Amino acid sequence: MKNQKNLVALKNFLKSKDLDFLLLPNSDQFFSEYLPQNQKRIEYLTGFTGSNAWVVFGQEKSYFFTDGRYILQAQNELDLEEFEILNIADKPLIRWLQENIGTKKIAIDSKILSVNFVKTLLNFSQNIVFLEENPIDEIWQNRPNSSNSEVFFCDEKVVGLNSWQKRQKILPQITADALIITKSENLCWLLNLRASDIDFTPFLLAYAILFKSGEVELFVDKSRLKDIENSNLEKVKITETYAFEKRVRDLSKELKTLQIDEKTTNYWLYNFLQINGCEIINKSDVIELQKSIKNSAEIYGAIESHKSDGLAVTKFLFWLQKSLKEGQEIDELKAEEKLLEFRQQSSEFLYPSFRSISSFAANGAVIHYHSSEKTNKKIAGNSLYLIDSGGQYLGKNFCGTTDVTRTISIGKPSSEMVENFTRVLKGHIALARAKFPHNTCGADLDVLARFHLWQAGLNYDHGTGHGVGAFLSVHEGPCAISKRSRQELLPGMILSNEPGFYKAGEYGIRIENLMLVEKFDEKFLCFRTLTLAPIDPNLIDFKMLTYPEKKWLINYHEQIMQYFSTKINQEILLWLDSICVKFNSFV
Amino acid sequence: MKNQKNLVALKNFLKSKDLDFLLLPNSDQFFSEYLPQNQKRIEYLTGFTGSNAWVVFGQEKSYFFTDGRYILQAQNELDLEEFEILNIADKPLIRWLQENIGTKKIAIDSKILSVNFVKTLLNFSQNIVFLEENPIDEIWQNRPNSSNSEVFFCDEKVVGLNSWQKRQKILPQITADALIITKSENLCWLLNLRASDIDFTPFLLAYAILFKSGEVELFVDKSRLKDIENSNLEKVKITETYAFEKRVRDLSKELKTLQIDEKTTNYWLYNFLQINGCEIINKSDVIELQKSIKNSAEIYGAIESHKSDGLAVTKFLFWLQKSLKEGQEIDELKAEEKLLEFRQQSSEFLYPSFRSISSFAANGAVIHYHSSEKTNKKIAGNSLYLIDSGGQYLGKNFCGTTDVTRTISIGKPSSEMVENFTRVLKGHIALARAKFPHNTCGADLDVLARFHLWQAGLNYDHGTGHGVGAFLSVHEGPCAISKRSRQELLPGMILSNEPGFYKAGEYGIRIENLMLVEKFDEKFLCFRTLTLAPIDPNLIDFKMLTYPEKKWLINYHEQIMQYFSTKINQEILLWLDSICVKFNSFV
Repeated sequence: MKNQKNLVALKNFLKSKDLDFLLLPNSDQFFSEYLPQNQKRIEYLTGFTGSNAWVVFGQEKSYFFTDGRYILQAQNELDLEEFEILNIADKPLIRWLQENIGTKKIAIDSKILSVNFVKTLLNFSQNIVFLEENPIDEIWQNRPNSSNSEVFFCDEKVVGLNSWQKRQKILPQITADALIITKSENLCWLLNLRASDIDFTPFLLAYAILFKSGEVELFVDKSRLKDIENSNLEKVKITETYAFEKRVRDLSKELKTLQIDEKTTNYWLYNFLQINGCEIINKSDVIELQKSIKNSAEIYGAIESHKSDGLAVTKFLFWLQKSLKEGQEIDELKAEEKLLEFRQQSSEFLYPSFRSISSFAANGAVIHYHSSEKTNKKIAGNSLYLIDSGGQYLGKNFCGTTDVTRTISIGKPSSEMVENFTRVLKGHIALARAKFPHNTCGADLDVLARFHLWQAGLNYDHGTGHGVGAFLSVHEGPCAISKRSRQELLPGMILSNEPGFYKAGEYGIRIENLMLVEKFDEKFLCFRTLTLAPIDPNLIDFKMLTYPEKKWLINYHEQIMQYFSTKINQEILLWLDSICVKFNSFV
Repeated sequence: MKNQKNLVALKNFLKSKDLDFLLLPNSDQFFSEYLPQNQKRIEYLTGFTGSNAWVVFGQEKSYFFTDGRYILQAQNELDLEEFEILNIADKPLIRWLQENIGTKKIAIDSKILSVNFVKTLLNFSQNIVFLEENPIDEIWQNRPNSSNSEVFFCDEKVVGLNSWQKRQKILPQITADALIITKSENLCWLLNLRASDIDFTPFLLAYAILFKSGEVELFVDKSRLKDIENSNLEKVKITETYAFEKRVRDLSKELKTLQIDEKTTNYWLYNFLQINGCEIINKSDVIELQKSIKNSAEIYGAIESHKSDGLAVTKFLFWLQKSLKEGQEIDELKAEEKLLEFRQQSSEFLYPSFRSISSFAANGAVIHYHSSEKTNKKIAGNSLYLIDSGGQYLGKNFCGTTDVTRTISIGKPSSEMVENFTRVLKGHIALARAKFPHNTCGADLDVLARFHLWQAGLNYDHGTGHGVGAFLSVHEGPCAISKRSRQELLPGMILSNEPGFYKAGEYGIRIENLMLVEKFDEKFLCFRTLTLAPIDPNLIDFKMLTYPEKKWLINYHEQIMQYFSTKINQEILLWLDSICVKFNSFV
């Protein structure tokens, strides 16, 4: 009912201004994956808690656009008398707008829409109304403040290069007099700084300008900076956030050209630069590729983070099977909490790298499921439990980001579950053991993870792998393993390997490890699996495995034993050993 | 020496006209895969007999560009004091021209260069001299005449649709007033006619114009048309070839717009149309996709052609092993000839669909090898024999084009050869048995054929599969199975499946079948293997095969037995049965 009142207020606003629609994306001016609380306008107005959403609010009816992962969730969370839910796969937003706007007046907040998007919009509609203020911000009661979290600096030892060295790698790709950095993860990586402005990701939400000289001007309130003397921030000028507009206006006059990426720069800023007479050079993100190729310190950090993380996951998996065997009552939320406790035993663990997906039985088939009091299932009976989780790690000697999924048999899973889990596993192993020539991209390899599912007429409706940051975002570009990813895989990139299978209303399967791209020899590259957590042997039909697949499983679990044998108690050790014995007995 | 005299004459021409270079492609005005004898200018001047070549002739030195497949061959065939050989993979022709032309004058014959190419050239050079006549044609002594072969018509029953029906499928894609058809295979397919203007492919080399009304004007000398009354050529006007220029000039004035494909239209024609005031609409080949999706009669034709072809290959393979066992001396040329004899036993066989690659031992590593008196090897000792061949078939009830490669053990092949053959076979089978969702392209599947080679650090430097025509070209677009092919695979397409492995100086392995894309169910497609010829069990390490791979081999050979059991003598039947028994014994 709270939402309904807000919606009425918005409708009144539209009526009072004689606007037909307000178009609202689920983003802020930084276009990061996660939003700070005070930017979750769609959640405030509609109750929807997923990440991908666009809403066209109307005076009468509103239209809600999301993708296949969130359709079920939207149907649960939205007031269906107010919102028509559309799947962007069937009806892309832009196409819907082309077909439905006509001469109607549509209002936008150009501070939270990219240049690319608004240019597309302007191509087919003459009735775009650019709002000065976002009307939801005016309606919003008890809106949270900006977090303004403390900004801290990563030691050069931990991130491998100081900011000045990193800038030298980027400068050759700046063709203008300066680059405006609008994407938070680029700023954090380039300046070796972090903050806690949003959940799960150590981002500082701020803008910066990188000049051709290598100098940087960072727009952040000085009061937020901790330990600035030890920041190693050579040639970085700090300017208060409020002064950004004025500074950019001045720069537009001083400099001939400014470089931006129109995909991740908001239209308001672009327009502001243009008005002030600056020539804008649009070039695709020049920091992203460099950031994705981890240096040796970042690789060391990834390996160490995965040791800590894998230990927590292994303890959790032991705890789960033991507790269930002992007849304890465990539900999704309890399990999620327990896994967090195990992670917190590591002194380097900061917080989860995303909200865990702790899902039993039918909930496992909801790919981006998050358990709540309403949906929480007891883990009991005969089915599968799927747990997808990760952590952000920061210690004295390393930092890193993890992401791991395990699917566990509960009771006696059906032979269909076992067969499908084995097919997912065969795909996972094929990708994990792949050697591939230089100049191979993710799209070239994607089928390896799908082949054994396809042979049974099955598939999964998501990519096979995404890039992962170094103590940054758990989803990072430009590399990926999917049908569409044309980015060449290069040594130092870290990607997930996460094929799955989902049977709606019944169960979900996913096996996810992170992998590092390594050089195998002069001609070939290969993956090194970073994640360390046992795979449930009870879900494997060993008759379906080839010798190299079994060998991979044995080696993988022996590696886990080797890392953890001195770090776990006798009870867990015996359990882990029994898993290894099982794998060995099937060769 | 003959070539040297010709080269001198060409150099004199360049000097007399004050030209620095003549740029010559290995093509004619129709841009087909094979050239008629009187268009083989590069062969006449340089002695090179391969297909891919570009030559920049200079007053002093000349530059010869080809790809990796032909570098060795060019080194053998060219006078290396006259020609510098360049691999286009290392030094693309266009890049070389950009770096080396400068202000030099470079002459071209715009009748044998595409619009695309000449436009690129004009982008960076102001000194292009357009020749009225090709100087080689003037030098050329005893130049063969155009073949002017008889044009014949394919019965509707054999090709499935009459020309008028085919035109209805193409018309919606013509956005201009008319389409100029410059690619021979499109003309032959659209009008259901064929001729013998070039080797291996039943092409009529001619132009035609398809009007928006569906009417066609075909430019060919009437004297070449056989049985024109029964041609079913509704609404086709025949105009003599010599009148083409005049007719096009008139049309340029009559019609507002003319559609061409700049990739396969020569620049001379494009320029001629422009001069005469016609607006040209450039659109990628609109006939190609339709042609690649075989109708039921074409599919029936492919199946029947493969039965005839497979029978010949099976008899040949039996003959080869038997003759060698009996101690007969057999060499590459003799084997090639014998295979032709077996094919000729079929009344529907017309001629080979390309020059056979009959190669023993080290010759097998030359991917596009053609045996000659000079290179002919005796098939003896311990190694591998590779035979890649195909046929054009035309009977009363069907027509079709085939392409098949088998690699055969001679003596006792090494365990390395056996291992690598098995890896190639595993890739071949993975692709052959693949089920894949709709909207999958060849690039998505390519890795399936390579994975098992990659795991051993091996690879092959060619695509995995090409499209194949229906009694047309053995290499046909737009579909392919390769890293680069983004064309969606659609039911009715026919493609080759031909992974290989080549060890320079030692041996070559390739296993090639043609496959038809079929609908498996509402969500998935699959391949149906068309080629019917046994695979040598002596080259397989059965321990390396999985159960589904063995099962595929058994089913495949049982199918061969089933088709041929009534068509072969007892001796061959027993041999074939012994192969089946061997496959069965290893499950």
